[in-house]
Amino acid sequence: MYGQNWAVEPIRSWFTESRRIASWLEILGAIAQAQADIGAVPRVAADDIAQTCAHGISDLGRVAECSHATGHSTAGLLEAVRGLVRPEHARYVGLGTSVQDIADTWTALTMKLTAERLEQDLGALAGQLASGAARHRDTVMLARTHGQPGAPVTFGFKQAQWGAELARHRSRLAEGRPRWETAQLGGSVGSLAFWGAGAPGLLAAFARRVGLQAPVLPWGSARDCVAEFGQFAALVGATLAKIGNEVYQLQRPEIDELGEPATGEQIGSVTMPHKRNPERSEQLVTLGRLLRAHASVLLEGAVTEHERDGRGWKAEWVALPDVCCAVTCASALCTDLLAGLEVHVDRMRANVEAAGGLALSEHAVRVLEPRLGLPAAYRAVRRAVLATRAGEFNDLAGALAAAQDDEPAGLADPRAAAASATAFADEWVRRADPGS
Amino acid sequence: MYGQNWAVEPIRSWFTESRRIASWLEILGAIAQAQADIGAVPRVAADDIAQTCAHGISDLGRVAECSHATGHSTAGLLEAVRGLVRPEHARYVGLGTSVQDIADTWTALTMKLTAERLEQDLGALAGQLASGAARHRDTVMLARTHGQPGAPVTFGFKQAQWGAELARHRSRLAEGRPRWETAQLGGSVGSLAFWGAGAPGLLAAFARRVGLQAPVLPWGSARDCVAEFGQFAALVGATLAKIGNEVYQLQRPEIDELGEPATGEQIGSVTMPHKRNPERSEQLVTLGRLLRAHASVLLEGAVTEHERDGRGWKAEWVALPDVCCAVTCASALCTDLLAGLEVHVDRMRANVEAAGGLALSEHAVRVLEPRLGLPAAYRAVRRAVLATRAGEFNDLAGALAAAQDDEPAGLADPRAAAASATAFADEWVRRADPGS
Amino acid sequence: MYGQNWAVEPIRSWFTESRRIASWLEILGAIAQAQADIGAVPRVAADDIAQTCAHGISDLGRVAECSHATGHSTAGLLEAVRGLVRPEHARYVGLGTSVQDIADTWTALTMKLTAERLEQDLGALAGQLASGAARHRDTVMLARTHGQPGAPVTFGFKQAQWGAELARHRSRLAEGRPRWETAQLGGSVGSLAFWGAGAPGLLAAFARRVGLQAPVLPWGSARDCVAEFGQFAALVGATLAKIGNEVYQLQRPEIDELGEPATGEQIGSVTMPHKRNPERSEQLVTLGRLLRAHASVLLEGAVTEHERDGRGWKAEWVALPDVCCAVTCASALCTDLLAGLEVHVDRMRANVEAAGGLALSEHAVRVLEPRLGLPAAYRAVRRAVLATRAGEFNDLAGALAAAQDDEPAGLADPRAAAASATAFADEWVRRADPGS
Amino acid sequence: MYGQNWAVEPIRSWFTESRRIASWLEILGAIAQAQADIGAVPRVAADDIAQTCAHGISDLGRVAECSHATGHSTAGLLEAVRGLVRPEHARYVGLGTSVQDIADTWTALTMKLTAERLEQDLGALAGQLASGAARHRDTVMLARTHGQPGAPVTFGFKQAQWGAELARHRSRLAEGRPRWETAQLGGSVGSLAFWGAGAPGLLAAFARRVGLQAPVLPWGSARDCVAEFGQFAALVGATLAKIGNEVYQLQRPEIDELGEPATGEQIGSVTMPHKRNPERSEQLVTLGRLLRAHASVLLEGAVTEHERDGRGWKAEWVALPDVCCAVTCASALCTDLLAGLEVHVDRMRANVEAAGGLALSEHAVRVLEPRLGLPAAYRAVRRAVLATRAGEFNDLAGALAAAQDDEPAGLADPRAAAASATAFADEWVRRADPGS
Repeated sequence: MYGQNWAVEPIRSWFTESRRIASWLEILGAIAQAQADIGAVPRVAADDIAQTCAHGISDLGRVAECSHATGHSTAGLLEAVRGLVRPEHARYVGLGTSVQDIADTWTALTMKLTAERLEQDLGALAGQLASGAARHRDTVMLARTHGQPGAPVTFGFKQAQWGAELARHRSRLAEGRPRWETAQLGGSVGSLAFWGAGAPGLLAAFARRVGLQAPVLPWGSARDCVAEFGQFAALVGATLAKIGNEVYQLQRPEIDELGEPATGEQIGSVTMPHKRNPERSEQLVTLGRLLRAHASVLLEGAVTEHERDGRGWKAEWVALPDVCCAVTCASALCTDLLAGLEVHVDRMRANVEAAGGLALSEHAVRVLEPRLGLPAAYRAVRRAVLATRAGEFNDLAGALAAAQDDEPAGLADPRAAAASATAFADEWVRRADPGS
Repeated sequence: MYGQNWAVEPIRSWFTESRRIASWLEILGAIAQAQADIGAVPRVAADDIAQTCAHGISDLGRVAECSHATGHSTAGLLEAVRGLVRPEHARYVGLGTSVQDIADTWTALTMKLTAERLEQDLGALAGQLASGAARHRDTVMLARTHGQPGAPVTFGFKQAQWGAELARHRSRLAEGRPRWETAQLGGSVGSLAFWGAGAPGLLAAFARRVGLQAPVLPWGSARDCVAEFGQFAALVGATLAKIGNEVYQLQRPEIDELGEPATGEQIGSVTMPHKRNPERSEQLVTLGRLLRAHASVLLEGAVTEHERDGRGWKAEWVALPDVCCAVTCASALCTDLLAGLEVHVDRMRANVEAAGGLALSEHAVRVLEPRLGLPAAYRAVRRAVLATRAGEFNDLAGALAAAQDDEPAGLADPRAAAASATAFADEWVRRADPGS
Repeated sequence: MYGQNWAVEPIRSWFTESRRIASWLEILGAIAQAQADIGAVPRVAADDIAQTCAHGISDLGRVAECSHATGHSTAGLLEAVRGLVRPEHARYVGLGTSVQDIADTWTALTMKLTAERLEQDLGALAGQLASGAARHRDTVMLARTHGQPGAPVTFGFKQAQWGAELARHRSRLAEGRPRWETAQLGGSVGSLAFWGAGAPGLLAAFARRVGLQAPVLPWGSARDCVAEFGQFAALVGATLAKIGNEVYQLQRPEIDELGEPATGEQIGSVTMPHKRNPERSEQLVTLGRLLRAHASVLLEGAVTEHERDGRGWKAEWVALPDVCCAVTCASALCTDLLAGLEVHVDRMRANVEAAGGLALSEHAVRVLEPRLGLPAAYRAVRRAVLATRAGEFNDLAGALAAAQDDEPAGLADPRAAAASATAFADEWVRRADPGS
Repeated sequence: MYGQNWAVEPIRSWFTESRRIASWLEILGAIAQAQADIGAVPRVAADDIAQTCAHGISDLGRVAECSHATGHSTAGLLEAVRGLVRPEHARYVGLGTSVQDIADTWTALTMKLTAERLEQDLGALAGQLASGAARHRDTVMLARTHGQPGAPVTFGFKQAQWGAELARHRSRLAEGRPRWETAQLGGSVGSLAFWGAGAPGLLAAFARRVGLQAPVLPWGSARDCVAEFGQFAALVGATLAKIGNEVYQLQRPEIDELGEPATGEQIGSVTMPHKRNPERSEQLVTLGRLLRAHASVLLEGAVTEHERDGRGWKAEWVALPDVCCAVTCASALCTDLLAGLEVHVDRMRANVEAAGGLALSEHAVRVLEPRLGLPAAYRAVRRAVLATRAGEFNDLAGALAAAQDDEPAGLADPRAAAASATAFADEWVRRADPGS
C-alpha cells in the first residue's frame, strides 16, 4: 500500500521477476550475437536465439521446475530457450557462458538505469536549489551550530550549501559511471576460458551489443565497482537525509522556519487532530539509514575469495536492488519536498531578532573591533550578552550602546551581519549551471 | 610494541600531539597572512604572527590549562599565541576564525598527506603486479569458484585482476583528491561572517597560503568529502584485504600455492614448533575490517544538522586518524607482502592436474563441442567426470578418450585451457603504465 | 523462484500483506476487548468489533484508497472496520489508539513467532551437534589456526564447540524473550493519555488479550528491545555463518574433510561439468552478512528523538522483517546442512598425518618435556621440524627418534595428541541436554 | 588534552602498556599456580613464577627486542620471565600455554572491569532518574512525535521512560556477565592439548585462580561472547545517546526546556560571545556512534574460521578497548549531565500552552467523546483546531466552547491531560529499586 515511499518508477518495475527475466533473456541474445560478431556462431543461429530471447518465455513454470531440479539458477532458463529455438541452434544457446555473465551484466544495466535516473534527479535538485538560492538571496535566517543559534546567514546561503554538495555528487556520478556501466562476460571462472585467445575480442563485441563499457578484463571476481556504486548511493542518501532532517528540525513549531506542504484532507494523527507531521522529511532520513546498511553489504562483498565468491555475491542480489530503489526514491522525494517547501521568511527574521538579538554578537564584535581591537571587543560584547541575559537591557545593541557612550552604526542589522553569506551564495549561483 | 602493524610513517607521526599542534599553528599563521593578503591585517602583524606560529609554543601546559578552564579546545592556543606576539599584534591573532577553520583545514591536509602516500603505494603495487603478471604469464594455476577448483587460469591473470582493481583505485584517488584537499575557512557559522563581502576573496587567499584547493563555499557543514575519503580508503582496504585473504587461503599447506616469506628466527607459535603463520596476509584482512567500521562513522557524520553538528564532527576526530593510519599501513604491508611473495609454480600445476584433471572439464567440453554440439559435449564430459570420480578411469582425458574411440587433441593441456587468461593478462600488461 | 534461500515458513507468510492486515485487525479487536475488560467500552460493542476484525475485511481496495487520501497508514483500516460493525459501535473502534499501538504490538508478535521458530531450530541443532559430538568422539582431525594445520583435535570437539556457542544462544533467547514479547499500547504519545489514571490497567488487560508480557510503561519510544532482538539474530547469524564457512573451507577438495550432500541431478555449473558447490554453506555466510546489516539499522533506530521518531521507526518496518526472515532461514538451512553432512573420517586422519606428521609437533614437545624440560624440548622439536621439512627424514617422529637415540612412546599417535579434545567433548556431551 | 571526553578511570589506565603487561604477567603467574593445583608443576616453581610475575619486568626494552626478532607477540615476555625465575623453574614458565590464553583471559578481565564500572554507573543513573521522576511527577511538558508537539506528558514520565530502558540494560548486564567473565585457557589450538585428559581440571583450577567463570570448553575460537559484550555496550550507548540527543534538542533556545549547566568562565565560541553549547549532550551522541562502529567489528569477528582466526582476533585488539573506553565514558558523562541538568519547568508549561493550546487536542476529544462519540468528537476538535489556526479564536478551548454552547470542564487543563503519564511514572518509581 505504501510502496511509493520505498521505490519509484522505472526502478521499481525493473526488479519485478518478469522484467528481470526479460532482461536476462536479452543479455542471452546479445551473447549469441556477439559470438556471431566474432564468427564463433553462425549468424542465423544467433539471430534465432536473439529473436527467441526478445520474444520471451511464456512457460515460466517449467523454467522454475528445471531450476529446482538442478539446484541451479539459470539452468532452467537455458533449457527453456534451447527448447524454443530451431533444434540445430540449440547448441549455441549460452555457449561458454556462466550465470554470472548474465547476472553481472544485468547488474551493470541496473546501475546504469539507476545512474540515469539519479542524473536527472540530481540535475533537477540542483536547478531547484539554484533558483531557491537566488530567490532567497536576502532572506536572513539564523545559522545554528551545536543546535544553538549562531550568527545570521541567508536561506539562499543554506540552499547554496545543499546545492554545492549535490554538485559534487553530480561530478562523482559522472566519474563513476564508466566504471559501473561495464559489461561482464567471463564464462566459467572469469577468463572466458571457452574462447581461448579470441576471448578479448568477444568481450569487446558483447559490450557493444549491450551498450556498456568494455573492460580490459572480465570483472566477475572484482566487486569494487559494485561496492563503489553502493558507496556513492549511500553518500547521496546522506545528503538527502541531511536536507530531510534540516526540514524536520526547522518545521518544529517552536522554530517554524520551513514547512512541508500538507493538503487539507491529510491526517497527521488519528488521535491528535492538530498534528502535521513532516512525513517526507523523515522518510529521507529513513532512506539514508537503509542506504548505509545496504551499501555496507556491498562493500564487504568486495573482499572476494578466489575467482567467484558466492558468499558476497548472493548478498549483492539482495542489497543492490535495495540500494537502487532507496536512492532513487530519496532523490524523487527530495525533489518533491523542495518543490512544495513552505519558507516562512518572517519567522526566520523573527528568530534572528529573538532574545535581544544575541545572535548578532559576532557581528557586534566585528563592528567594535576597529575601535577596540579583537580581544577587548570580544570582552565588551560578552559583558553585554550577560547583561542582556540578566534583563538589564532589552537587547544586545542597547547594552553595547550603553557601554560605548554611543551606538555604533549597524550593530543590529541582520542583513549586514549576513553579507558574506549573500556574497558566497551569489558566487555559487553564478557558477552553478544546473543544465550542464 | 606492535605499532608497525597499525600505522606507518609519516602518517603515524602526523597524529602525535606535538605535530598536530605545530600544524594547527601553521594554519593559524596562514590565516593571518591571508588576511594581510586582502589588506585586512597589517603585513607586519601577519608576519609576526606567522613567525611566532612557525616557531611553536614551548609551554603547552599553559595552553592545556586555559583550554581546561574555558572548556574550549582552541581558546588556550589562541591565548598562548597572543601572549607571544608583539602586544600590538595580539588583536590580529585568530581574527574572525573559529576552531573549525583550523581543525578542518588540518583535516584537509591530513587527507592530502594520506593521499600522497597512497598514490605512491598504489603506484608501487601496480608496478609489482604488472611485473608479476608478465613473469607469471605462463604459470598455470587453478581458478576457484565457490571455494572449489574451476578451470585453470594463470597466476599472471590473477595478478592482472588484482592490478585492474588497483588501477581503478588510482583513478578514484586522482578524481577525489581535488574534492578532499580543499581549504576550510568559515568563521563562526561557516559563512566567514566577520569578513562581509570580502569573505570569498579571503577564502581564496587562504587556500593559496595552505596549498589547498579553494572551494566556492566554506565546507564546514558539508562532510560529504570527508565521508567520501573514508569510503575510498575502505574500498582500497577491501582490495588489499582481498589480496591478503587470497594469500592466506593459498598458503594453506593443503593448497600451498603461495607463501609469505619467513625468516629463520621467526616463531609461528610458542607451543607448536612447526607453525608458519600468514601474519601479514591476515593483518590486511584485519585492517580492511577496521577501515569499514571507521569509514561508517564518517559516512554517518555526513548527515549534519544545521551549520555545525558536533555530534558527527567529533566522531570524525577519532575516525579520520584511524582511517588514515589503517589504509596506509595496509598499502605498505601489501607492498611488502607482494615483494617477498613465494610462488610455488610446481604446486600450482600439480593442483590443476590433481584428481584426474577434472578441472579441465570445461576445456574438454570446448574440445568436444565442435564434434558434438554443446549439450551433448556437456553430457559426455559429465559422464566422464562421474566415471573418473568412481575410479573407473585414472583421469578425465582417459575417460573421455574411451567414450570417443579416440583422444581428441589437447584434452589434457592446461596451458591451452588457460589461453584466454594469458590473452587477457597480456592485454592488461600492455595497457598498464604504472609510472603514469 | 529462489525464495527458499531467503525465507522459510511460517515466517515468510507472516509478512504477506493479507496476513499482516489480518494480524493488525486481531490486535484492533483485542484493544476493544481490553477496553471492555476495564469497563471503558460496552462488552457487546467490543464483541462486535472483535468478531468483525476476526472476520477480516474483504474490500482492501477501499482501505488503500482512504489511506491514500489521508496520507495516514491506518486511517483507512479504522474507517473500514467502523463501516462494518453495528453503527452504534463504530464510536468504539480504535478508541484512544494510535497506529503505533497496532504496529508495535504486531512487532512484538513478530518477534515472538520468530523466537519460537528459533527455539525449535536451535534445539534441533543442539541435538544434532550433541549426537555428532558423541559419534565423532574418536574422529581425529586437524585443528587449524591462522589457516595453518595445528595440533590435532577431534571432530567431536569441533561439534562441541559449535554446540557450546548455540547453547549460549539458547540462554540468550530465553533471557531476551520476555523483553521482546511485550505488548505495546500507548495511544497518541505513548502515555495512553486518553485513559487517564486507568491507563496502567488497560495496558495490563491488553497484554493478557494478546498473550504478551505487560510492560510497566508503554515502550513506543524505547526501541532498545527491538534493537536487542536484531543484535541477537545477528549474533546467531554469525555462529551459523561460522559453521557454514567452516564447511565451505573444509569442503575444498584439497582438504576434503567435510562435504555438503548433493543429489545426482544437481548441477554445480553450466560450464564446468565437474563442479560441486557448497551452496548452503555459502548461503549461511551470506545470510550472516545481511543480518549484520539489517540489525545495524535497528540499533541506530534505538537513538529515538522524543516520544516517537519516524526516522528510525520506519526503517524498522523494512529491517525487522528482513531480520526475521534471514535468521530463521539460516537456522533452517543449517539444520538441513548438518543433517546431511558428509564427514570424511579417513581424509581427516590423512591430513593429520600429512607432511611427515608435523602437526604433532606440540604433542612431541609434550612427550619430550619430562625428560628435557620445556625450552630444550621445544628446540629439539623445532630442529626436527626443520630437518623433516628439509627432507632429511620421512617424518617428525623419525627425526626426533634419531636425535633422541630412541623413539619415545606415542610420539606419532594422533589419538593421544587429541586426548584433551576428547575429554572436553565428552564433558560437553554429558552436560548438554538438548531436549530441555 | 581532551582525553576526559573519550575515557575515564580506571578504564583508561587499564589500557596503558605498563598496566597491560602487568596484567599479562599476573595471568602467566596464575597459569603456573593452576598447573601446580593439579599437580603438574611443583608448587615451589609455581610460587617462584607467580612472585616473579607479580614483581613485574623492569627491562621492557629487551622484551620488545625479542618480540621483534621472533615476530611473536609474547615470545619476548616468556623469555624475560624465564630469565628472572630460578634456572630450574624456567622450564615451567608458560608450559602448554599460548599467547591467546593470556590475551583472551585479559579480555575477560577487561570485560569484567568494564562491567563493574557499568553496573555502578547504570545503578547511579537509575537512582538519579527515579528521584527525578518523583521530583517532576507534576511537571507537565509536551510530548513530541515526529518532532511536532503532541499531547502533554510529564517530565517525570520522560525520566521514567529513560529509566525503564536503563533498568533493562541492568538486567542484560546481569545476564551477560557470567558469559563474558569467563577464563580462557586453550593452549595451542584451544583444546589444552598439552594436558591430555587433565585439561578440564586445569581449566577449572585456572578459572578459580583468576576469579572468572570456568567454561565447559575453552572459548578461544568462539567469539560470540566478546561480540555480545560489544553489542551490549553499543545498546547502552544508544540509550545514552538518546538521552544526550534529547537534551541537545530540548536545549534549543526556541524550546528551552532543559539546559546543560555551564560555568561562568566557560566559552561556547571564540567568535560568538553569546554561545552556550550542549557539549556533553553532543558527546553522548558521538560516543554512541563510535560504539556502534566498534561493536560491528567485534560482531564480524564472531565468524571465525577454524580454531583461531587472526583476521578477526586482531581486530578485537583494537575494537574492544575502544568499546570499553567509550561506553564507560558515556555512562560517566551521562551521570554528570543528569546531576546538573537544568529543568525549566515554566518553559515546559508555556510550550504546552503555546499556539492556543492545540497540543490538548486529544484531551479535548477525550472530554467530548462521552457526549459525541469518537468520530464526531474528533471532527469537532479538528474543526476547532483549524479555526484556532485561522485566528478565529484565541485558543482551542474557546473554539470548542463556541461550538458546544458551553465549555466542557477541564478542556484546557494540562495536568488532567497528563494524568496517565503521572500514573505510569508513579508505578515505575514504585517498582524501581535502584539499589538492588
